Amino acid sequence: MSAAKPKAKDGEVNRQWVLVQRPTAVPQPADFALVEAAIPQPSPGQVLLRNRYLAMDPAIRNVLGQGGAYAEPLPLGQPVRGMVLGEVVASDDPAFAQGDIAWGFGTWSDFSCAAAGGLVRVPPEGDLAMHLHHYGTIGLTAAYGLFEIAGLRAGDTVLVTGAAGAVGSMVGQLARAAGAKRVIGIAGGPDKCARAVKSYGYDACLDYKADTDLAAGVAAALPDGIDVVFDNVGGAQLELAIENIAKNGRIALCGMISGYGAAGPTPGPSNLWNLVARTAGIRGFRVTDVLADEARRQALLQPIAQLLSAGRLKVDIDVRDGLEQVPTAFAALFDGSNAGRLLVRLP
Amino acid sequence: MSAAKPKAKDGEVNRQWVLVQRPTAVPQPADFALVEAAIPQPSPGQVLLRNRYLAMDPAIRNVLGQGGAYAEPLPLGQPVRGMVLGEVVASDDPAFAQGDIAWGFGTWSDFSCAAAGGLVRVPPEGDLAMHLHHYGTIGLTAAYGLFEIAGLRAGDTVLVTGAAGAVGSMVGQLARAAGAKRVIGIAGGPDKCARAVKSYGYDACLDYKADTDLAAGVAAALPDGIDVVFDNVGGAQLELAIENIAKNGRIALCGMISGYGAAGPTPGPSNLWNLVARTAGIRGFRVTDVLADEARRQALLQPIAQLLSAGRLKVDIDVRDGLEQVPTAFAALFDGSNAGRLLVRLP
Repeated sequence: MSAAKPKAKDGEVNRQWVLVQRPTAVPQPADFALVEAAIPQPSPGQVLLRNRYLAMDPAIRNVLGQGGAYAEPLPLGQPVRGMVLGEVVASDDPAFAQGDIAWGFGTWSDFSCAAAGGLVRVPPEGDLAMHLHHYGTIGLTAAYGLFEIAGLRAGDTVLVTGAAGAVGSMVGQLARAAGAKRVIGIAGGPDKCARAVKSYGYDACLDYKADTDLAAGVAAALPDGIDVVFDNVGGAQLELAIENIAKNGRIALCGMISGYGAAGPTPGPSNLWNLVARTAGIRGFRVTDVLADEARRQALLQPIAQLLSAGRLKVDIDVRDGLEQVPTAFAALFDGSNAGRLLVRLP
Repeated sequence: MSAAKPKAKDGEVNRQWVLVQRPTAVPQPADFALVEAAIPQPSPGQVLLRNRYLAMDPAIRNVLGQGGAYAEPLPLGQPVRGMVLGEVVASDDPAFAQGDIAWGFGTWSDFSCAAAGGLVRVPPEGDLAMHLHHYGTIGLTAAYGLFEIAGLRAGDTVLVTGAAGAVGSMVGQLARAAGAKRVIGIAGGPDKCARAVKSYGYDACLDYKADTDLAAGVAAALPDGIDVVFDNVGGAQLELAIENIAKNGRIALCGMISGYGAAGPTPGPSNLWNLVARTAGIRGFRVTDVLADEARRQALLQPIAQLLSAGRLKVDIDVRDGLEQVPTAFAALFDGSNAGRLLVRLP
């Protein structure tokens, strides 16, 4: 960690990436423009962060499109929002002081104003990127979805879509460590599938891009059905999971990257009757619901801390340096050219 | 109740309705034929019932079609299965004796052989139809789905599809009695909607057959979203419920009458992303999961018993007399010409 720079320097401006056109399919660098603005001042209850890391997460895609079935669209010309980690350079809230390190929702910019209530303070020592990853939204998302939403129990069979992604790679390892009977992943391409098996705790990983019958592959890998599904993808893969759900199965709906680029609503799974026939359930969740609760957060992170202290947690973070890299880094999420969780580090 | 006739009479045969062709849309009387067979003998662990009531329930439609996404199809020529109530005329299980009255899965016939473990014994006094209705699968389905699956709490807003149906009419009254803030129904036609409001505890009931905008009607009736959905219909009405689901909303999936007549899988809701955005869930359930547990069944029936003893439970049962009436009675479920839960009474 470099020396703290708690104040904005004289003459500094706030460079920020704003949305200039709505991506119609996968996001392109030309959808964004880097503009300069004055450094904002925190309102009461807010702090001003000098961003050190920006997290490039697929769910951001949701607000870039026309909205509709997914989310309220981000107005054109507005800075893009996402998870950031930064140093407090000014605070108008008693909970934070200049020099504190914290993460939460911010903007793709040099500085972010953020509500103090939505920020998580982290110790200044150690690897800061860790707090945006395995001790941050990714680790919390994996643990919350797997243990609380899907209620994983030892002996369960598990299917994870997006198995080699930031969240999926953590889910595989957590499920394995918690005594799942069989952990099967779905990912795109032989490299990701190999990594899922080699590093992320999966017994097998099916390649949805391969010229094979994915449905047959899932049925063969989990012939007695699936107790727990952790779905990051939606669409056809969610339908496949529902097709193979076991009696009393639980599906945690984390993301729907397959639908983020769609021009409008896409048809949902045609087999929801299976939920009745097999008394199964689907629950959506957002990690933001647990961020504010320190004790709950710590409890959820416990299995991750155990793996980490045993030297058994495999973490792949793909760090790109410089605010200029944001649009290409974000686009890399959607063409699969990233080598792990994508973080942009600011100097 | 007439005098008990615990034995089959000499020369009696077992008339049974068998499936002779698969309905392509709504079931028609010509899909079934009445054939005669020998009265079956119970195998070990079974009892032979002389059926007194046969319940005509929409879910039976599931097994009459080609199966596919829904259920294993009933082979042609086989007697149709459904809930029955009858008198034990022979028992090869120590739990039941000749003369006992019990209900459970049987066949559309004069006599049914049934596994003793799946039967619920009822006291011989009182109204036997009650045990196939509000103290039977209908009451249990309503209470199980509303309280256990959807977790209704006082103050919740509630949407029920099929609001004037056998289950829906009970759900409305239970939700009202449990302190729901607002209970809105959807039903087909002005008569059903009027009955839902007048008799079944609904604050308002929307007519999906009317030439009005159902989506706008739901949004206006429940402007702050829906906490609890009890869905008997599926399809567009389920999608509408998901569209208006509140944060932490719970959808109990009971049936999908809109899909039962479909030739194949129909597209599912296109807005499952809402489950993530609003951290909501859908859970399917089957009342058969609670039938075997006497204590649980009694607990679930408690709110119904309270309403009943206070003289506040409105029950509409449409009884048709004679085994010959079965096909027209069953078809009436699908054209909406029934005036309540359809039971066929045998002499």
